[in-house]
Amino acid sequence: MGTGVRIGKLVIIGVGLIGGSFALALKRAGQVDHVVGVGRSVRNLERAIELGVIDACEHDAGLAVRDADLVLVATPVGQMGGVFDAIAAHLPPRAIVTDAGSTKGDVALLMQRHLPCQLGYCVPAHPIAGSDLSGAAAAQYGLFEHRTVVVAPLDTTLPDAVERVSDAWRTCGATVVAMAPADHDRVFATVSHLPHLLAFSYVNSVASRPDAQRCLDFASTGFRDFTRIAGSHPEMWRDISLVNREALLAEIDAFSNELAALRAELAAGDGDAMEARYRRARAVRLDWFARFQKR
Amino acid sequence: MGTGVRIGKLVIIGVGLIGGSFALALKRAGQVDHVVGVGRSVRNLERAIELGVIDACEHDAGLAVRDADLVLVATPVGQMGGVFDAIAAHLPPRAIVTDAGSTKGDVALLMQRHLPCQLGYCVPAHPIAGSDLSGAAAAQYGLFEHRTVVVAPLDTTLPDAVERVSDAWRTCGATVVAMAPADHDRVFATVSHLPHLLAFSYVNSVASRPDAQRCLDFASTGFRDFTRIAGSHPEMWRDISLVNREALLAEIDAFSNELAALRAELAAGDGDAMEARYRRARAVRLDWFARFQKR
Repeated sequence: MGTGVRIGKLVIIGVGLIGGSFALALKRAGQVDHVVGVGRSVRNLERAIELGVIDACEHDAGLAVRDADLVLVATPVGQMGGVFDAIAAHLPPRAIVTDAGSTKGDVALLMQRHLPCQLGYCVPAHPIAGSDLSGAAAAQYGLFEHRTVVVAPLDTTLPDAVERVSDAWRTCGATVVAMAPADHDRVFATVSHLPHLLAFSYVNSVASRPDAQRCLDFASTGFRDFTRIAGSHPEMWRDISLVNREALLAEIDAFSNELAALRAELAAGDGDAMEARYRRARAVRLDWFARFQKR
Repeated sequence: MGTGVRIGKLVIIGVGLIGGSFALALKRAGQVDHVVGVGRSVRNLERAIELGVIDACEHDAGLAVRDADLVLVATPVGQMGGVFDAIAAHLPPRAIVTDAGSTKGDVALLMQRHLPCQLGYCVPAHPIAGSDLSGAAAAQYGLFEHRTVVVAPLDTTLPDAVERVSDAWRTCGATVVAMAPADHDRVFATVSHLPHLLAFSYVNSVASRPDAQRCLDFASTGFRDFTRIAGSHPEMWRDISLVNREALLAEIDAFSNELAALRAELAAGDGDAMEARYRRARAVRLDWFARFQKR
């Protein structure tokens, strides 16, 4: 846990799993006086108040941020431009604006475009804590404990603002790492975005077989784990794909070259070469998993 | 549970997770009088006796099968030719020989080559119950409950022999499905073998980046599940790759075409086409998972 961040008024725009859990953690730590939730679904906001995730709700984002100290935009990235537009004219001069999107280059650009007067106080960020769950009812204590949060400040962001957002996430139990937005997107193209595209493509490749249904009847636990991420949200992944297009094209090409090399060895019946390849992958995966479990 | 199979002497060649769990299930059901284990590791066989997995052990496979009713060869597929050779001259005329390998076309060929006098009683089979565990100590009651076992008889196999092996697996709690060996290998190329090759290739593609270690520090639960099967046994997967080469080449090509189509849409910035693709994959995966959970 961090040493405390002391926030007067916190505004959460998009009170779902991430935004709600962030509010809950800061409340539990006694580091926030008042939490206001903003969202499109009145029902969801009312539920959030019942559950103690937020203290009050407000339909109008501009109104909500008027005396805010920290604003977390935890909507889908596709809605962020509109949200920034709605709050731009209403933010107090030193209110910090941060987000929780899975891509950072695009959020940095949106902030530069829509929040020109706030550029010292914009802190793009990415808490690495996904889940299939959504809505305020999914908010949970401890979601960010032992997780990593990437902060990806603009060139103009003031160090104090980065430190405030970092302290807030540390108060939630997370480890904070700073990266440039473009660097963040390259790294996540490799370890997150590419596997999603491969899983979607694999499932479609199976589904397009004439005997797909019969094949699927024999799929078991290996298939289950390999394809879990193919159940992810199509619109969210369309947006991520478009936003991170250049990095993803390079990732697809690197993967395709690797697969083509394996295919050539398979066609040639070169068992030694394939075994060496599998052995290398296994060692990397086992080493990674041992470290992952210790995080 | 099945109605019973009543086996006098069962010989398990390769007393590991699969062979040991098969013996345990038949013993618990009271359907076997005597279980003899054969293996290369005396220590493993002694442990199997201590654990009650087998009743006795024997180093010489030929000696062990002399009065056998059912012989399960549960060694790696690469050792099966040698095992069949060792037992061929010693099998009683109507002893049934079955196996537990992940590929069936090659086992069928090995049986035809090495067991020419037993061809009415050879029943290639594949219990779909993998795990990272191995050795007799990994044997467990209930491993095959609610699992599927494929029996893939030769053209020459007698219906009674297929039925005996099927009854034994049903006694273990499994559902039995019959398929031709080549058909089995095509289906498993799709739902099991291809995902393994993709997972190995993906991990190698990440590992060959100059900043691989740094990327891996940010990999999380999606990566963990997608790459679990990249931790599988390199020699076993070399053998499976070589044995099922033709089907796997076709699978790699179908997948590569699917990925190339997605890449073209990504390069063109066609978000609608990508979203439709992700939506299709998601629907197939969710539908499959709902059915898988009910098995």
